[in-house]
Amino acid sequence: MDVQKHVMEKAHKAKKAARMMAGLESAVKDRALCAMAEALMDNHAAIKDANEKDLAAANDLGLSTAMIDRLTLTDARIEGMANGLREIASFPDPVGILTDMVHRPAGIRVGKMTVPIGLIGFIYESRPNVTVDAAGLCLKAGNAVLMRGGKEAFNSNIMLAGLLNKVAIANGIPDGAVSIIELTDREGVKYLLEASGVVDLVIPRGGKGLIKTVVENARVPVIKHYEGNCHVYVDKSADLDDAIAITINAKTQRPGVCNAAETLLVHREIAGEFLRRAAPELLDRGVELRGCETSRSLVPEMKEATEEDWYNEYLDLILAVRVVDSLEAAVDHINTYSSAHTEAIVTSEIEAADYFVTNVDSSSVMVNASTRLSDGGVYGLGAEVGISTDKLHARGPMGVADLTTYKWVVYGTGSIRK
Amino acid sequence: MDVQKHVMEKAHKAKKAARMMAGLESAVKDRALCAMAEALMDNHAAIKDANEKDLAAANDLGLSTAMIDRLTLTDARIEGMANGLREIASFPDPVGILTDMVHRPAGIRVGKMTVPIGLIGFIYESRPNVTVDAAGLCLKAGNAVLMRGGKEAFNSNIMLAGLLNKVAIANGIPDGAVSIIELTDREGVKYLLEASGVVDLVIPRGGKGLIKTVVENARVPVIKHYEGNCHVYVDKSADLDDAIAITINAKTQRPGVCNAAETLLVHREIAGEFLRRAAPELLDRGVELRGCETSRSLVPEMKEATEEDWYNEYLDLILAVRVVDSLEAAVDHINTYSSAHTEAIVTSEIEAADYFVTNVDSSSVMVNASTRLSDGGVYGLGAEVGISTDKLHARGPMGVADLTTYKWVVYGTGSIRK
Repeated sequence: MDVQKHVMEKAHKAKKAARMMAGLESAVKDRALCAMAEALMDNHAAIKDANEKDLAAANDLGLSTAMIDRLTLTDARIEGMANGLREIASFPDPVGILTDMVHRPAGIRVGKMTVPIGLIGFIYESRPNVTVDAAGLCLKAGNAVLMRGGKEAFNSNIMLAGLLNKVAIANGIPDGAVSIIELTDREGVKYLLEASGVVDLVIPRGGKGLIKTVVENARVPVIKHYEGNCHVYVDKSADLDDAIAITINAKTQRPGVCNAAETLLVHREIAGEFLRRAAPELLDRGVELRGCETSRSLVPEMKEATEEDWYNEYLDLILAVRVVDSLEAAVDHINTYSSAHTEAIVTSEIEAADYFVTNVDSSSVMVNASTRLSDGGVYGLGAEVGISTDKLHARGPMGVADLTTYKWVVYGTGSIRK
Repeated sequence: MDVQKHVMEKAHKAKKAARMMAGLESAVKDRALCAMAEALMDNHAAIKDANEKDLAAANDLGLSTAMIDRLTLTDARIEGMANGLREIASFPDPVGILTDMVHRPAGIRVGKMTVPIGLIGFIYESRPNVTVDAAGLCLKAGNAVLMRGGKEAFNSNIMLAGLLNKVAIANGIPDGAVSIIELTDREGVKYLLEASGVVDLVIPRGGKGLIKTVVENARVPVIKHYEGNCHVYVDKSADLDDAIAITINAKTQRPGVCNAAETLLVHREIAGEFLRRAAPELLDRGVELRGCETSRSLVPEMKEATEEDWYNEYLDLILAVRVVDSLEAAVDHINTYSSAHTEAIVTSEIEAADYFVTNVDSSSVMVNASTRLSDGGVYGLGAEVGISTDKLHARGPMGVADLTTYKWVVYGTGSIRK
């Protein structure tokens, strides 16, 4: 099949749907979302059949046990997806909110109105539930979405997107609002990225390879959801019990996710006492420690950290450890090596906390809290589009409101420029 | 000279300055801005000397009289630039504003804090006063700026940027915060656009050629300030006096700027009466009319409009005219051909106004007002970075607050993820 033709036909159809969606009533969108949830519940068997095909191919694709687990759709997970859609339906409509309305001397009233972004390209490598989340969140914000999932979940994704689009149409949403590229060629991603004037935004969620492809080929705006090389910095004024609890939680509570900590920075003044207490706790929990020279002199069980370790997102029970001479040196280290996702300081001094919050250039900056709390649900956003590691438009956990933009609306009375 | 080396040295130095600027006190920034204004006033002669060199080269570059006029720095214009900096100093600081702070069940307080974007690459082709505006606005928002002006204003730009940086340093701003590429090679733009991880945002202000180069080469986020193919739509319910006043104002009050109207759309039901009254007024003011078949049957003086005319930003006393069958057809025309800058409807019906405002996908949508009112000053933003024709982060007139982004700040008490 001609990949370009396939992608561009889908994109143009979705763009047409997007144009029709700007004025959709909230009730129509919410009814469609609830009907989509019902359809998932009514089609457990068909969904699991499609998923079976992916699972059957999983071994050939060389997927790990963890990856196969993430790919598997159980009854409970299908119910979870349906509940997600119902939760999205219950949110207030983020579109059409008029703010900052002022009377201006030119005789006009001027304000800003939230509006859908338009057609969003969503590229992901994750579990099939992302298909449902992305469809629901984009629809709620009045956007059309053209998705491109990973090949390991191909059959599940196509089945889910097809079902949701069908139900959406039956409930007054234009055809193409929920759409998916039905080809696995990498080339398809490229056409999506080059569709300037058709695709309004591409959101890639994935690892190095995907993000590299996107950055090198995108002619359309992109909000990247990239990796989390998160840091915990234990200041000289830290409560050491808090510091130990936060370090253990940030590293071990769920090491395979982007808001887990990957590097521990420790102020020289308390490094001896802190590391001698923290290291055994971490080692007991199976964490491999890779340290700088000073750290290793304090904890002989540590392996040697290389320059590369400071950049690494392990997503595993490995923690890089570095002793730093000062708060400023900790901030420098973070601004040099971090992926700008989430960083935490443990301190009892307001001045140190303020310096850290002001000068660390990451999407979430925390004082006396675990990096694992960097999450749309924890922050109160409800279902999350993902965690943006970019700086523009949306930073950190992205909620449904971040899938809107605004336009200026101006009301005059035959008003002209003098 | 090695272009890449020149650009990247400047970029790294500016990035270093940006890191140091996140925590700058408001008073320091404002003092520097006022000192920069003083320095402009104290250096009229030197500024005009540099400008003379550009003017001497203007003929060789084949600049038109209008372009030479825009390039010329008079005493009044230098004073205008200084006043611009003083105005920027008087704005409230857009950085460090903490909003949306909430207590969450996880035991944390979460909010958003406005922060500088970082290093902004500013590429422009316009008048040398843009150098001063860009430097002032970026500094106010705590950003470093690396500028790249047009070659026709090369000497003026280098002189101004050098002076401003020197004065900024003397007032506590880090060296490199106000910087400019001192080469005219197009290649320099490319390195700026590829400096992923160093340059946080590129803002190009210019015509087709520049914007094309930027879109094709950018690996960093971009907010484009592109052309304005603006529309006035006269609905069947329009007050025709208002419609005539708005059309004349939108087209002729200043035809060479981006918020001037380029196409007039007229509802079929009132086309006869409206065009027979409006056309002579426009023709009297020297406007060339290019119409569709129906328009020309009503106004014989009209030339024939081609498909290309609907896309054109004339920036001149030319107006394309099309009679449409309905409000919906007008909106379709706009969403097809517009550059998504500013569109106006003239109508007396609320429903028509609402449909237009909801469904036109442009950065400013106006009811009974001239497109010429689409302007940061008119809207109350104060000095304007430009008018974004992109949809993400900042849309339409960009003020100094649009040169910030936010970070999430989280305060816990030893809080961990359960």
